[in-house]
This record gives sequence, C-alpha cells and structure tokens, in this order.
Amino acid sequence: MPEQTRPARGMRDFLPDDVRRRDYVIGIVESVYRGYGFEPLETPALENIETLTGKYGDEGAKLIFRVLRRGEHEASGETDLALRYDLTVPLARVVAEHRGKLPRFFKRYQIQPVWRADRPARGRFREFYQCDVDAIGSRSPVVEAELCAAASDVLRTLGFSDFVMRLNHRGLLRGMLDAFGVPAALHDQALVAVDKLDKIGRDGVAAELATRGIPDDAVNKLLAAYDVPQVKAASKAATNAEALARVRQYVAGHPDGEAAVDTLSEIVRLCSATSGADHVLVDPSLARGLSYYTGAIMEIAVPDLAGSLGGGGRYDGLIGMFSGESIPACGFSLGLERILVVMAERNMFPATVQSAAADVMVTLFDADSVLDVLGLAGELRAAGLRVDTYPEPDKLGKQFKYAASRGVRFVTVLGEDERKANAIKIKDMQSGEQEVVGRNDVVAWIQGRSKTL
Amino acid sequence: MPEQTRPARGMRDFLPDDVRRRDYVIGIVESVYRGYGFEPLETPALENIETLTGKYGDEGAKLIFRVLRRGEHEASGETDLALRYDLTVPLARVVAEHRGKLPRFFKRYQIQPVWRADRPARGRFREFYQCDVDAIGSRSPVVEAELCAAASDVLRTLGFSDFVMRLNHRGLLRGMLDAFGVPAALHDQALVAVDKLDKIGRDGVAAELATRGIPDDAVNKLLAAYDVPQVKAASKAATNAEALARVRQYVAGHPDGEAAVDTLSEIVRLCSATSGADHVLVDPSLARGLSYYTGAIMEIAVPDLAGSLGGGGRYDGLIGMFSGESIPACGFSLGLERILVVMAERNMFPATVQSAAADVMVTLFDADSVLDVLGLAGELRAAGLRVDTYPEPDKLGKQFKYAASRGVRFVTVLGEDERKANAIKIKDMQSGEQEVVGRNDVVAWIQGRSKTL
Repeated sequence: MPEQTRPARGMRDFLPDDVRRRDYVIGIVESVYRGYGFEPLETPALENIETLTGKYGDEGAKLIFRVLRRGEHEASGETDLALRYDLTVPLARVVAEHRGKLPRFFKRYQIQPVWRADRPARGRFREFYQCDVDAIGSRSPVVEAELCAAASDVLRTLGFSDFVMRLNHRGLLRGMLDAFGVPAALHDQALVAVDKLDKIGRDGVAAELATRGIPDDAVNKLLAAYDVPQVKAASKAATNAEALARVRQYVAGHPDGEAAVDTLSEIVRLCSATSGADHVLVDPSLARGLSYYTGAIMEIAVPDLAGSLGGGGRYDGLIGMFSGESIPACGFSLGLERILVVMAERNMFPATVQSAAADVMVTLFDADSVLDVLGLAGELRAAGLRVDTYPEPDKLGKQFKYAASRGVRFVTVLGEDERKANAIKIKDMQSGEQEVVGRNDVVAWIQGRSKTL
Repeated sequence: MPEQTRPARGMRDFLPDDVRRRDYVIGIVESVYRGYGFEPLETPALENIETLTGKYGDEGAKLIFRVLRRGEHEASGETDLALRYDLTVPLARVVAEHRGKLPRFFKRYQIQPVWRADRPARGRFREFYQCDVDAIGSRSPVVEAELCAAASDVLRTLGFSDFVMRLNHRGLLRGMLDAFGVPAALHDQALVAVDKLDKIGRDGVAAELATRGIPDDAVNKLLAAYDVPQVKAASKAATNAEALARVRQYVAGHPDGEAAVDTLSEIVRLCSATSGADHVLVDPSLARGLSYYTGAIMEIAVPDLAGSLGGGGRYDGLIGMFSGESIPACGFSLGLERILVVMAERNMFPATVQSAAADVMVTLFDADSVLDVLGLAGELRAAGLRVDTYPEPDKLGKQFKYAASRGVRFVTVLGEDERKANAIKIKDMQSGEQEVVGRNDVVAWIQGRSKTL
C-alpha cells in the first residue's frame, strides 16, 4: 500500500516551471531593491514563541504554527518555537540584537516564506513568500518616497503599468476619528471597519461600525467624509491636491492630524520626482490591518485583483519593543504569490522564463561511445551550454523523441560513422537542419546557431 | 524591559555579508547543476508527519521538529505536521505524486533549508541548507558518473582543488560482510560501525563491531581487509585499479558482490572522461549512514575538515515506498554550511562578493534640493548603478563620513553652487579625486570610472 503523496494542506510543491517563474520575479525584486541600496537579510524559519507573542493581535495569534518541545518534554504538549509569521517582527528582533554591527540607516530586503494556519482558499496558502523592504533609522519622508519608488520600479520592471499606490497616514485617520467624535479607545475598532470599505461597501462598514460601538453621529460623519463622488481630476497630481485640501478641513485645529496632512503632502511632492510619480494616489480611506503602523501607510492595487499586491507603512514603535530605545522604521511588503497569480492570468512571463531545461542533448549511440559522449558533454558545458546526457543506449528514435518532448533545441549523435570521421552529427530541432560537423567545430556550430531566434 | 533578541537555539540570523557569501555559493551550485540539465524543484517546509515517519531510522526520528495541531486540537498536544528533515524524502513523494507530469528521466536540483533538533555545536545548526541533485528513472552508471562530475565541477568552480570523491558500493560492502561470515541480519549493524573507521580508528571499530554482536572471526577478517598499507600508486587511476582488484578477490564467487565491483569499475571508467576524473577514489571502507542506499555511494572529503563536504548514492527502493512501483534513483547532496566554513577559513571568497551595498551615495544638501537629488538617484539607477540616498539634510561632513563607513565609491553633492551651474560635484572616494561635472554628464562620468578597479 503506497503512502500518501500529496503535500500537506495549504502547501504546494513547485515543479521546475513553477520555480523558474518564481525565480524570475524574485530576481527582479532583488535587483531593483539592490539598485536602491537595500541589502539582503535572512532570518530563521523558527523563532522562540515569545518573540512572536503579542505582535499580531488575537486573530493573528491563532494562525501561528507552534512547534512541540523535544525530548522529555514532548509528552507534555508544550511548545517553545513558532514558525515565522511575517518578516517585520524578525527584522525588529535582528535590529535590536545586531544594532552595533548595522549602519545607522539600515536598509534591508528579505525574501523568505512565512507560515500561517489560515483556512486554505483560492490564492491563499499556508506557506507563502513575502518580499519585504525596510529602511530603519530615519524619520525623513524621503524614506517613504524611496520605498514607493522602489516598489513601483519592481512592478514596472515586471511589466505592470496600471497599478495604483494608495497612500494615507495613521495620524490623519486618528485625527479624523477624533474630529468626528469617535472615542480614542475605539479608534482601533473603527479602523478595522473602515479598512473594509473596499470589500463590504458603505452599508457594510456602517453596520460594522455600529456593531463595534461607534456612536451613530460619528458613523455618519465618517461615512460622509468617505462618500466623495469620484471626480476625475485633470491629473493624478490634481486629484491628490484636491484630496489633501479636503482632508485638511476635517482635521483643522487638530495638531497631529494637520501634521499628518503635511507629511502626506511632502511624500506626494517627493514622489513626483521618482518613478512612483504616476502611481501614488492619496486615499483617506486606506487603513491597513496591522496595528503597529504609526505614520504613512501604502497599499498597491490593480484593477483585476481583489485585495492588494503589497503594502506597507511607517512603524516607529515596533523595534523599541525589542531594543528598548525608540528607532524609527518604514517598510513595504510585496506579495509574491499574488503577483504571480496576476502575471500568469495576464500572460506576463517572457518566453525565456519557460525555456527548456537544456540547450543540447547528447545521445548515447552505444556502450563503446560513452566516454566520447561524456567528453563532448563536458566540452559543451565548459562553453556555457546547458547539456543533458541521455543515460541509456536506447534506439536513437526513442532518444530523439525524448529530446523533442523536453524542448531541447540541439541533439548530437556520435555513431560509428561519426567516430571514424572524427565528427559529430548535430540536429537543430527547431529548423530540422541536420549536419555532420568536425569534432573540433561542434561548440562553435552550436553557439553560432544558439544566437539566432 | 526589552524582549529577548537572540535567535532561537541552533538558529542563525544572516546579516547582509553572510547572505552575499551564501548567495555566491548557491549561485555557482545552481549554475553548474543547470549546466548538467538539472531543473529546480521546491517543496514545502512542512510535511504531513506520516510522510517522514519511518524514513530516517530511530535516531533520525528523534530529531524531527513536530508541529502542534491547530484550533480545538491544540490542547491535546497532538502533532500533525513536521519540518522538512532532508530533501530526498520530499523528492520521493513529489515523484510519486507528479509522475505523469515529469519527464522519464527527471533530473532535479533543490536548494532549501532543513531542520533537525540536533544538539547545536560548532558548525552544527538546527536550520541548515542542503544542495541536492538527483536523477530519477535510470539504472545506468552514466548517472553516477554525471553526478560525480557535477559535484566536482561545483567544487572546482568554487576554487577547491584538493578534494577527494570517495566511491564505494553497498553491494560490495554486503558481499564482503557475507564472505567474512557476518550474518545478514547484522549487516546494518556492521555498516554503522565500519562507517566510523575515519572517526574512531581501527580499534574503536573493532570494539564497536564486537559490541554489536559481530563474531570475532568476522571482525578480524573485516579489519584485515581495511588494514591495507597506504601504498602511493603512480596515479589515482592505478590506485583505483589496485583497490578494485583487491576487493574483487574478497567477493570472488559472490554474484551481488562481483556485480558491485563491475559497477564500480564502470563508474570509475566513465568518470575518467569527466571533470571528476582527478577526484574519484575507490574506498571500500566508505559506508554512509543512511539506510536507504542500495548501490554506489559517494562522499567528498577535504584534508582540513573532519566529516564530509557532501555525499550521496543510489537508492532504488525509496521512491517505491510512495509510488508503489520501483523507480531507480541516484543523488548527491552538498552541505552548504560546511562548504562555507572551509571557504571562509581558506579565504576563498572573491573580493566582489563582499563589495559595498551601493556604487553611489547621493547626499542631501538641503531641503530645497531634495527633488533634484531624487531625480538624480533615479537616473543613476536607470543606468544600472546601485544608489543609496542619504535621507536627511545633515552636515555634508557627516554624510561623507557615512558614505566612507559604507564603502561607497562615488558620492554626489548638489549644493547651491552646483544648482546654479546645472552641475553635480562628484567625489571618487577611492582615488580622492573630486570634480564638478555637468548635470547631463554625471552618469557617463561615474560609469567610466566604475570600470577601473
């Protein structure tokens, strides 16, 4: 009775074509982030449970995979380790632990899987990659502008042009809530509801705000503020200016709220000089789920995807939980899995990403020729070609059929005739051309043709 | 009271320099394996516990990290998932699950972390990377020869020249044990002891063989067979020929043993035509710990490391445990952590691996210039340069000091004078040269100098 062979629930095997597509996207993310001076960081999959405790709210805590203690403690059911849930909390821990070794402005990217015991659904997995980029150590809005520019550059390099980078500020949100009469103790509750405006609409949010105990009058004011007709301004810049002017009225006289609008205005101004210019859009209804944000927040939307391709924001308090001293931070996380879904649906992968596993297949005519065949394979590899060796002296027809099924372009044959002539027969599977080439000219022959098409 | 900031026991944070070194090695491993026609595969970190059960022996089972069930089952202490312990068992599961989608000869590489609850020690971690390469579907010794060649190519490309690829065959070991009078039921016990010849020496192995119930007479014959004076033969080929002739005598008349010597001879012959030629050495005492090997086994040794840099072998039975049909397989695993240790000790990393995080740092002279500075950074990035932006309008001296501490080569200044002249001042931190360059010539100026040194 053979064993169960499916991956665990919510987990996926990535076959070669999958990995190549993933590596293509990851390669571009890395390359763009390196271009902005971000450096790579990696943290362990397993963290001490205490490191993750109290960071993700009650809902998050339920989704953490916890690891049983080993040895004598095993029977107790106690757990001491947990699987990485995001890349931000480990970063905060690392910054506190290695502060002395890190530069004053530590800019890191991190591309690793995280694990959440969520109910699996279409596009929602229990193991998925995050591509995070964070800048530690500065309160300057230049940081936000550069993060928006970097994320925009990633998406543009991947071929996206129709994305919007929604921009808001927690200080503005809280200022509006204050101004509309939502008690400070209910701000977090209200933000959770406002965050759903996209998903459940105006009436849904109204009902949820009421359920969460927000006074009726405040609910009405809040919804009125968001119930702005979608005026098509002449340009994104004009739309942003209009939105900023409008929200400035709501928080008039509220110092934190006004400061937040100033910051948003400055970020928008800075973005105008970067590749994020055409994408940043001030959206006062953006709230973001995570509780640790303290300043600007961002989220990327594309028309054909519910939910976002990524998001981020400023969190000036989190690192202090580990380091004991206040260290400002701002970051952005791209969702690799969602980017892959949209790219697949839109057919955005270049043909080269799905290319064959090898450029050349060397056939094995008979046992006598095997040393010559292995020598030939080695020579072609030394020239930078990817070479597959057919391992068994099957009938040539079978070997050619295999090469065709693998999409290999060049197939070599070294039979008795070729050996006598110190030559190799090469078939270009693309053109059908077949030629007997002198043994010493094989590499050049294949390299010459590789460049065509 | 700040929180604990150390990584969990036996786990490591990889800071940027660490990641760059790891990525350098992984890049070469991937590139060489792709050159041999191997394709990438990735499997989930978490497997159903049953998938791993019964695959790693009693000792291995104790080292598996197990994950608590979620939700209502949590209090029961039950576990249902386990962290990946190696890359071979997941491969066997994948081959069985996706057989229809995979080519007849499935050649895959896989570079992912595995987790073992081993006692942490110098160079031994609880999370570590394996670089595996396996060829599924053929019994031909061409497979072994190509695996030895590929692993040799990886090490040679990394700069190793003094490694030995020890080669043996499980059939030869069992044939010798039969011939020397070790009962078949004790073969596995005897192999565990023989495997330690390197570590605990002749006397240690003798004692352990006795403890494990091997008859005295058999112990003596076995040790005599391994107690061969180290004759320096004229060449590795001569040494191999001598070893093969010697072991052929031990298993004379034993069909499986003789077949094993034939296979070893053929592998050695095939390797002579590959880049493994100078490294393969027949070693009849090599046993390898894992129980699933059925044919040839290999292990890589370097003089300055106890233990091996990697190893592998043929395992024609494992995939059948999942697929129900017998599918031959042979593979090789390189230990990334050990390779990194030896490379660091020997100073084998090229200087470029430890290069600065950015090619250029743009300073921020004052708030007025920030849009121009961001525009300049964007232009330099579009030209392929890695550009760090100093985020705050600190004193220029402080900004230059920071650039120096980060090892950045070019620093740009856009002050009032430069703005009036539509120019940028650029300092080459390496040469000390400083020049005011026309705004439109900045990219060319830096690119021109980047090519030198």
